[in-house]
Amino acid sequence: MEPGTARIAVDLLGGDDAPAVVVDGALWAMRADPDLHLLLVGPAEVADGLIGALDPVQRTRVTVRPVRAAVGMADHPVAARADSTVRAAVTAVRDGIADAVVSAGATGATVTAAALGLGRWPHVRRPALVATLPAVVGPVVLLDVGGSLEPGPATLARHAVLGAAYAAVAHAVAEPRVGLLSVGTEGGKGDRLRRTAAPLLAAAPLPDGARYVGLVEGYDIASGARADVVVTDGFTGNVLLKAIEGAYALAGGPPASGGAPRAAALLGVAGTVVVCHGAARADDVASGIALAAHLWRRRATDTVSTLLDRAPQAPAKPGDHADRTTDTEVSL
Amino acid sequence: MEPGTARIAVDLLGGDDAPAVVVDGALWAMRADPDLHLLLVGPAEVADGLIGALDPVQRTRVTVRPVRAAVGMADHPVAARADSTVRAAVTAVRDGIADAVVSAGATGATVTAAALGLGRWPHVRRPALVATLPAVVGPVVLLDVGGSLEPGPATLARHAVLGAAYAAVAHAVAEPRVGLLSVGTEGGKGDRLRRTAAPLLAAAPLPDGARYVGLVEGYDIASGARADVVVTDGFTGNVLLKAIEGAYALAGGPPASGGAPRAAALLGVAGTVVVCHGAARADDVASGIALAAHLWRRRATDTVSTLLDRAPQAPAKPGDHADRTTDTEVSL
Repeated sequence: MEPGTARIAVDLLGGDDAPAVVVDGALWAMRADPDLHLLLVGPAEVADGLIGALDPVQRTRVTVRPVRAAVGMADHPVAARADSTVRAAVTAVRDGIADAVVSAGATGATVTAAALGLGRWPHVRRPALVATLPAVVGPVVLLDVGGSLEPGPATLARHAVLGAAYAAVAHAVAEPRVGLLSVGTEGGKGDRLRRTAAPLLAAAPLPDGARYVGLVEGYDIASGARADVVVTDGFTGNVLLKAIEGAYALAGGPPASGGAPRAAALLGVAGTVVVCHGAARADDVASGIALAAHLWRRRATDTVSTLLDRAPQAPAKPGDHADRTTDTEVSL
Repeated sequence: MEPGTARIAVDLLGGDDAPAVVVDGALWAMRADPDLHLLLVGPAEVADGLIGALDPVQRTRVTVRPVRAAVGMADHPVAARADSTVRAAVTAVRDGIADAVVSAGATGATVTAAALGLGRWPHVRRPALVATLPAVVGPVVLLDVGGSLEPGPATLARHAVLGAAYAAVAHAVAEPRVGLLSVGTEGGKGDRLRRTAAPLLAAAPLPDGARYVGLVEGYDIASGARADVVVTDGFTGNVLLKAIEGAYALAGGPPASGGAPRAAALLGVAGTVVVCHGAARADDVASGIALAAHLWRRRATDTVSTLLDRAPQAPAKPGDHADRTTDTEVSL
């Protein structure tokens, strides 16, 4: 674990089994990381229950922001109203009271709250959720896993840059190889989005010695032999991540190198935000908090943003405005 | 194994490692199934090599159709010209000389050849590739895995009917539960295609006591707890299938109930067609031949087609003509 204080705002009411699993996950994280400070955002009595389980020294690392309103999993993202736990957690980061946000609530609501509360990076129309998966030659960074369900080709190209920078910064991957997920590796394979995006990815100036390796296939996610960063739309990435998780469960457990992640980093907003799986268990919440602390300690969000600013942006292309906004994602 | 002769036309030149793995796979299949007859479609010397490895009694179950031209994996599907092995194999089925076709060649070329040579079913604008995967409560039928990369919502609804009929006929699933793959199970989750398709699937009259269970997620493919049939577009299905295969490889091997299939049935054309993985090994080709024989012996294609005719079709909707044709799929 890297040294340094990390102050994480935790959405106590986010997730199918909140607040119980969030409380348990927060307790595990507190005990595992002596430099971790938590800002508990949720009902005071829930926070009090958590604090009651800590020893007096640990308690000095916990503060509480009492908020009562949650966002339901079936709610429209704009339901992330100003007095909801996820909005309050984001506001704490904006105000410098916390360094990062962790929520297991509805992804769309968290993405909306983060984009509204923290602002988006220049040149990134659509934030991306980034998951890191174990691979034979690993790890492999997969994006987007649900931030933008219907990106246009220019967004895929931008996400390629984001993913390359993230692999370098968060996972110390040297000269990341970036692939575009499709149904075959031969040039021209894929649907219209992939065929339009491939030349944009090939032309995109990637940061940090990263290079575009062309089309990759589903196998490459668990293999890692062809690419360190796999770029796809948020719909495909989301169902893929969950299908891989299901496959590991059926195969009798995840590989020794770790299972499918149940926490993902949100890139493209001006702050460190980690989204946990809605069906997160306590250990998933704990790993989400640990990921947020890791990213903060590496100043990953700022560094990725800087790399992005430095990578000259490809000139605007006709596909640039082809993104679609859907009910389950950011709609500003 | 069901009884009854099955005459399978095998594309000797289809696949990355053809003809060697196709020859080996055909030999395995011949030895495993005493009622199997093969029509070998490819160069005479390749067929002769295979025949030379059989005993005299087995040889009576093999005939040869000499054809020299293959379709490359990177070729455009219209490269499936009349004198190619896959077209000749399809023609043999059309002419009643074989009961089914098996090819490990480029999927797009096989789908094109089958649609041109055998004709499509009425009311099915887009053929679907159907894969059967092991699941905790299994099997689960996943479609489309690459037949139609950019279906419109009406095609997804039609594929739901196809998948339900296939689960009942090919796998004897009683009253199949049909789900639409999305990023969450709550109504309204998903991209525009899913949100438009969901009400069409809910309204589609399904055959054989099948019922629509709503949105399902990636986990449900390996779980089977929520649905027996999972419907998605061919792009997503294709990358999913390969990602699950990769996950099993990383997890140390497939589950005891079997790995990700490397052969899929093509539904929507008037004949029995099985597509093997381009990177098929000999055992994959053998399992593709066994699948084709199984489907023929159950008269699965005809029965699915009959069930489809019997299921009243939902009235035409605005989305009906929203399919896109891409380079890697049928373009008639």
